[in-house]
Amino acid sequence: MSSERLIYLPLGGAGEIGMNAYVYGYGKPGQERLILVDLGVAFPDMDTSPGVDLIFADITWLKERVDQLEAVFVTHAHEDHVGAVAHCYEALGAPVYARAFTANIARRKMEEHGHPTETVRTASPWPEQINAGPFTVGFLPVSHSIPESAGLVIDTPAGRVVHTGDFKLDANPIVGEPFDPDLWSEVAKSGVKALVCDSTNVFSSHPGRSESEVGPEITQLVQDANGMVIATTFASNVARVKTLAEAGQKAGRSVVLLGRAMRRMIEAATETGILSDFPKVISAEEALDVPRANLMLIVTGSQGERRAASAQLARGKYRGLEVKEGDLFLFSSKTIPGNERGVIRIMNQLSEKGVDVVDDSSGLYHVSGHANRPDLEKVHALVDPQMIIPMHGEHRHLREHAKLAEAGGRTGILAVNGTMLDLTGNAPKVVDYIETGRTYLDGTVKIGALDGVVRDRIRMALNGHITITVILDEEDEPLGEPWCDTMGLPEMGSSRAGLVEVLEEDLNQFLMRAGAKTLRDEDKLEEGLRRIARQTAQAEIGKKPEVTVVVSRMR
Amino acid sequence: MSSERLIYLPLGGAGEIGMNAYVYGYGKPGQERLILVDLGVAFPDMDTSPGVDLIFADITWLKERVDQLEAVFVTHAHEDHVGAVAHCYEALGAPVYARAFTANIARRKMEEHGHPTETVRTASPWPEQINAGPFTVGFLPVSHSIPESAGLVIDTPAGRVVHTGDFKLDANPIVGEPFDPDLWSEVAKSGVKALVCDSTNVFSSHPGRSESEVGPEITQLVQDANGMVIATTFASNVARVKTLAEAGQKAGRSVVLLGRAMRRMIEAATETGILSDFPKVISAEEALDVPRANLMLIVTGSQGERRAASAQLARGKYRGLEVKEGDLFLFSSKTIPGNERGVIRIMNQLSEKGVDVVDDSSGLYHVSGHANRPDLEKVHALVDPQMIIPMHGEHRHLREHAKLAEAGGRTGILAVNGTMLDLTGNAPKVVDYIETGRTYLDGTVKIGALDGVVRDRIRMALNGHITITVILDEEDEPLGEPWCDTMGLPEMGSSRAGLVEVLEEDLNQFLMRAGAKTLRDEDKLEEGLRRIARQTAQAEIGKKPEVTVVVSRMR
Repeated sequence: MSSERLIYLPLGGAGEIGMNAYVYGYGKPGQERLILVDLGVAFPDMDTSPGVDLIFADITWLKERVDQLEAVFVTHAHEDHVGAVAHCYEALGAPVYARAFTANIARRKMEEHGHPTETVRTASPWPEQINAGPFTVGFLPVSHSIPESAGLVIDTPAGRVVHTGDFKLDANPIVGEPFDPDLWSEVAKSGVKALVCDSTNVFSSHPGRSESEVGPEITQLVQDANGMVIATTFASNVARVKTLAEAGQKAGRSVVLLGRAMRRMIEAATETGILSDFPKVISAEEALDVPRANLMLIVTGSQGERRAASAQLARGKYRGLEVKEGDLFLFSSKTIPGNERGVIRIMNQLSEKGVDVVDDSSGLYHVSGHANRPDLEKVHALVDPQMIIPMHGEHRHLREHAKLAEAGGRTGILAVNGTMLDLTGNAPKVVDYIETGRTYLDGTVKIGALDGVVRDRIRMALNGHITITVILDEEDEPLGEPWCDTMGLPEMGSSRAGLVEVLEEDLNQFLMRAGAKTLRDEDKLEEGLRRIARQTAQAEIGKKPEVTVVVSRMR
Repeated sequence: MSSERLIYLPLGGAGEIGMNAYVYGYGKPGQERLILVDLGVAFPDMDTSPGVDLIFADITWLKERVDQLEAVFVTHAHEDHVGAVAHCYEALGAPVYARAFTANIARRKMEEHGHPTETVRTASPWPEQINAGPFTVGFLPVSHSIPESAGLVIDTPAGRVVHTGDFKLDANPIVGEPFDPDLWSEVAKSGVKALVCDSTNVFSSHPGRSESEVGPEITQLVQDANGMVIATTFASNVARVKTLAEAGQKAGRSVVLLGRAMRRMIEAATETGILSDFPKVISAEEALDVPRANLMLIVTGSQGERRAASAQLARGKYRGLEVKEGDLFLFSSKTIPGNERGVIRIMNQLSEKGVDVVDDSSGLYHVSGHANRPDLEKVHALVDPQMIIPMHGEHRHLREHAKLAEAGGRTGILAVNGTMLDLTGNAPKVVDYIETGRTYLDGTVKIGALDGVVRDRIRMALNGHITITVILDEEDEPLGEPWCDTMGLPEMGSSRAGLVEVLEEDLNQFLMRAGAKTLRDEDKLEEGLRRIARQTAQAEIGKKPEVTVVVSRMR
């Protein structure tokens, strides 16, 4: 029991696509020195988290062991990998390592939150390595849909782990380094204990396509357009943004970048020297003087986000610019499951304005940033590890990826959030289950997903709300009649009288009949009033609303 | 102005996929005799209609002209075409005509609501015709994803209109009639004024596939399975249910139908003689005695509906049956946009139980029920109408379909809900815009989508709720301090004190400072209290909650 061990513990990302947070530890059980790989966010939705601003992995386990934490390593600058770095700074405080572009983005986040930017340290790519307690970590360049993505080569006394981060096999990614199979082989040559591997596209059976394939198609599309062209993609996909801008330029159009994230990403890529030869851009104000047939807008909001530039353009104007009949709107993106309604809303608003909408249904104008099934098989073979641990996926992705590993004659293990694996031996061993979950940033407050706060909001959304006010005098006798206020409920029920009036009458009946024992007992009285209100509402409007009972006593 | 005219007025379905309701009228302007084609529902979602049970088209215009209404014709038994028939019976009261299977389903709805089933009259297919005022209407059999779908041949003094209903071109639909191009040509031969045509799949560029194509694939899949097989599809797709059941039978499995809709649809199809040779089914109770490798469950809930059989099985048990490691779950369906999250939730729950999930991503196990773009072109040519009016689609579908018509050298016109067209002349003319919208069935009450009821519920879901109670004495002076109750809000804010305490303190400060004028003025006092509460909440928790203020006066 006292011998040292290498552990792996996903706190987020192994059970969802998003919210990545993976712990590695080395040392005696319970005293391991720890590093954290990625610290991302997930995004809320109305179905499960209305009113929530951001979702983090619950890092309680790590907070309780913050003295053991050596450093945080961030593989790339997507929000689901870097988004929580500033939000968790106060809890963790550890140095954050990332490559230059990612570090630039992380520092902007620190700055916004008033935290010291020195916490973020720029790492050079492999073969340079960073020492962090018993770990030596190198950033291995890999292609993805954002510049300077890296896999991590994590050397430990128990052997080498390769943590892929998000990746694809792209020989020509337009911006940033191509995937270099020779480099990966070289890293793997000395033997790899575990390959911890992106699972996002395990269900995509065809080999992945290169970022460079969309350029000619987009160029042609823009060339053929007559009105203004508006294109949206993920702002972080700097290569795509460049491709779009160049397509505009080739067609003799002035390029305008719209949306804060779009400008910030291009700025970061330029500052860090990744992006050069980006076509000249003009401001929205300057664009007002350019004929619309000579304009190419590249805008945020490919996922239908209500406040993004694309949604605002679809509804009307954005910074003085307006879409018109005969314009072309290109979604150079895929819709993340769950965002369909928002995207479709925009498409229809554009259609109402006579704008032609082109999306990726033809497969011509977007490629994925993740390795598909045959690509994963290639990487399994290239790295040839002792064991494969699928990460970055929902349960179904992780399970399928583990099966794929096994089908290739390798050890694959399904480890969802909270599963602590001991990787020291020849085969991975589950040694513990840690309680994990989600933390919501709700306004400015962090709350647990299971605290009941959001549950109550969902209930009010489904059932509406009634406030009941009752005043009791010094003798605990009702002073006047109870009254009701409703919110989110119809005014009239089945008895064709006002809902409030019917409620007040029934509640008054209840109060008149209630004995002294009930009237004196706070809980009993509240419970009785709530029950009557819900019964009456059910009879009147077929719903059982949420109820707040306020009993005021003149004692 | 006094000459008679033929009008077309969509009240629902021309602006969404769902909630179909199309009015045709003939007569002097304002005195037209009317018929309604289809009377369907749409389904609510958390984003826009939390707590709502069903959505109908707003039929106010029709209700105000109920004396002019001759009859309702229902093309087929999908909920978005027949779902509102019983809910609107009291408002309209007109006879409802449908073919036998559709009529069977419509009568069940009437029965459930306690309305006379005689309202629903069974129509025989073309060449039989029904007289309804100036209209003569025939039900022209057409293939779709439910038995006995019909296009309507609507003869009027101004010419013949063909209203397709939902349809596809299927020569071998397994159950029900194939699409018969000769019959359609024959109907069109004498000249068609307008083709009012399904637009759902206008963006699908390949020709549609036959229902018969999925049989061999499904049979093979079930044959190769080892554990229990569970398959889900739309219950109304009787052909698919039959194909699934036969695949089970061929593999030596006993077939179990689970879910109310599944049993009801098969019952209706059997009662009306459409379905014969359906494999013997056993009950859930009988299934408990059958080895799981010999079981094939066909279940409701292909769209991830929380209460359906598939969701219940994924969570645990349904009627004693349980999924286990090694079982196979087939989604023989496509996910309707907006339902992705629910479907993915089930897939992951099944994955957690070790169940293999197969969906339609391979394209093998599902075909659409709607005519694709090349199929639409075929029908345009076959019917060769004077004008084409796209229906059953979102704005983008209708627009694209109108463009397709124009591209084929025909007159296509975009008419969204509320657009009244005069079809009398050689070209369609927009003659009026009617106010249309959505009616929500909310519990047992019908409310307008814009009444503000649902808006308030959404706000509570996003912002939480505060109740403020203040008691004023006979002199309008505060009696004690104000107090607060919160719902859906965190307990603790940035000042690390209880949110309620901080609110109460700030509200008390306000009350102490408030002059007699404010204390006496109900609106002013309420407004002040609300403003303070929202300010304080914003400072403490970064949210501005919804507020109910209750002021009690001891006067």
